[in-house]
Amino acid sequence: MGGSSRRGERTDRDEPVSKAVVSRLSLYLRELQQLIRDGQETISSTQLGALLGFTDAQVRKDLATFGQFGHPGIGYRCHELIPVIRTILGTSESWRVALLGVGNLGRALVGYKGFRKQGFELVAGFDLDPNQLETGEGQQPSLGGGAEAIPIYPISELATVVRQQGIRMAMLAVPAAAAQSVADQAVAAGIDGILNFAPVTLNLPEHVRCIGVDLAIELEQLAFAVVNNANKA
Amino acid sequence: MGGSSRRGERTDRDEPVSKAVVSRLSLYLRELQQLIRDGQETISSTQLGALLGFTDAQVRKDLATFGQFGHPGIGYRCHELIPVIRTILGTSESWRVALLGVGNLGRALVGYKGFRKQGFELVAGFDLDPNQLETGEGQQPSLGGGAEAIPIYPISELATVVRQQGIRMAMLAVPAAAAQSVADQAVAAGIDGILNFAPVTLNLPEHVRCIGVDLAIELEQLAFAVVNNANKA
Repeated sequence: MGGSSRRGERTDRDEPVSKAVVSRLSLYLRELQQLIRDGQETISSTQLGALLGFTDAQVRKDLATFGQFGHPGIGYRCHELIPVIRTILGTSESWRVALLGVGNLGRALVGYKGFRKQGFELVAGFDLDPNQLETGEGQQPSLGGGAEAIPIYPISELATVVRQQGIRMAMLAVPAAAAQSVADQAVAAGIDGILNFAPVTLNLPEHVRCIGVDLAIELEQLAFAVVNNANKA
Repeated sequence: MGGSSRRGERTDRDEPVSKAVVSRLSLYLRELQQLIRDGQETISSTQLGALLGFTDAQVRKDLATFGQFGHPGIGYRCHELIPVIRTILGTSESWRVALLGVGNLGRALVGYKGFRKQGFELVAGFDLDPNQLETGEGQQPSLGGGAEAIPIYPISELATVVRQQGIRMAMLAVPAAAAQSVADQAVAAGIDGILNFAPVTLNLPEHVRCIGVDLAIELEQLAFAVVNNANKA
């Protein structure tokens, strides 16, 4: 690590921000949030890079794309940089998110603690047949406990609920065979961002953003790390 | 989007392979696999880059790190490049993977189709109390249907099963409060790669590789895409 070329330090304001930079911003944000929890107020680009396996030049270059945030002799102030990154990412205000599909994966997502903390609120779930969920007689079907419980609606009510609740994003957690059809309904309902857990490529209109979650990629990255670690030892 | 600097094309064999390169290899692999399914035999670096939002120079540079795979006037041959990338990633032979925790997330992971296809075989699950699973009287508790069904063991049998089954990797899908303790047991049992779904940072020995899956990061990337798309429109 360290010892990167100086070339990396030029600013890049005129170029479009690459996916790689945006994904590193999320990683910086997580580390800064952890530092605050650990009681650390400031961090140098070298330290921040070291936590993530990046060079100091990479960190400085990424952040310099958006402005001057470092302080000479101090580094970055965590409390200062966190809202900056959240503003860049678009998560300084919270997003209302719909869950499409309430099978095992959908239930796991309802229970996932990491969303709300980062500005994403699951406000409604949808399924072909919400009445399959165990609920009291005549009660609105729901999933999750306490403050995290969300109502589950039949998918036929998607457009109405999306409009009423100001939902713009959806997590698609239906079986692969249903994914395109449910995505089409989400788009028709006004959703313009889809996090797709189904292992299929969706055909979507130009204006809709979609990110596919491919868990096998994470395992591949782990395989590489295990093999290359083993080879070193 | 095209027009990158030529600088990106030098080879980098002397430098350690960065996480960013390794993660792009997974993305190239997925696109190549999809191309084959679509009946396309070859692809240029420009086309491959365009599918993923990278420049042609980035694609050529990444692959040149490992050798010369392009053919003048043809580009890359999909059938030739796929096994090369799998060998680099360490997934040319399949990995035997344990599932730790069989709650909603664990069940969703058992049903996830994407693992086996990429060389990861879930061979055993572990839980504090496998007998909570609905199984026939006196039968080995199991999860999943048909060929994908995996036996579920009490966590106390982890070391024995890991040794017997030649398991090196585990997916950690237990609640946050139990994650460190279960990870410690996995390490003691000989696991040297952990895919951590629990939203906590694990303290692990130096020789163990760990990748954390942070689903909020995917949502943040989607938020950025939605906001910046909206701003453009």
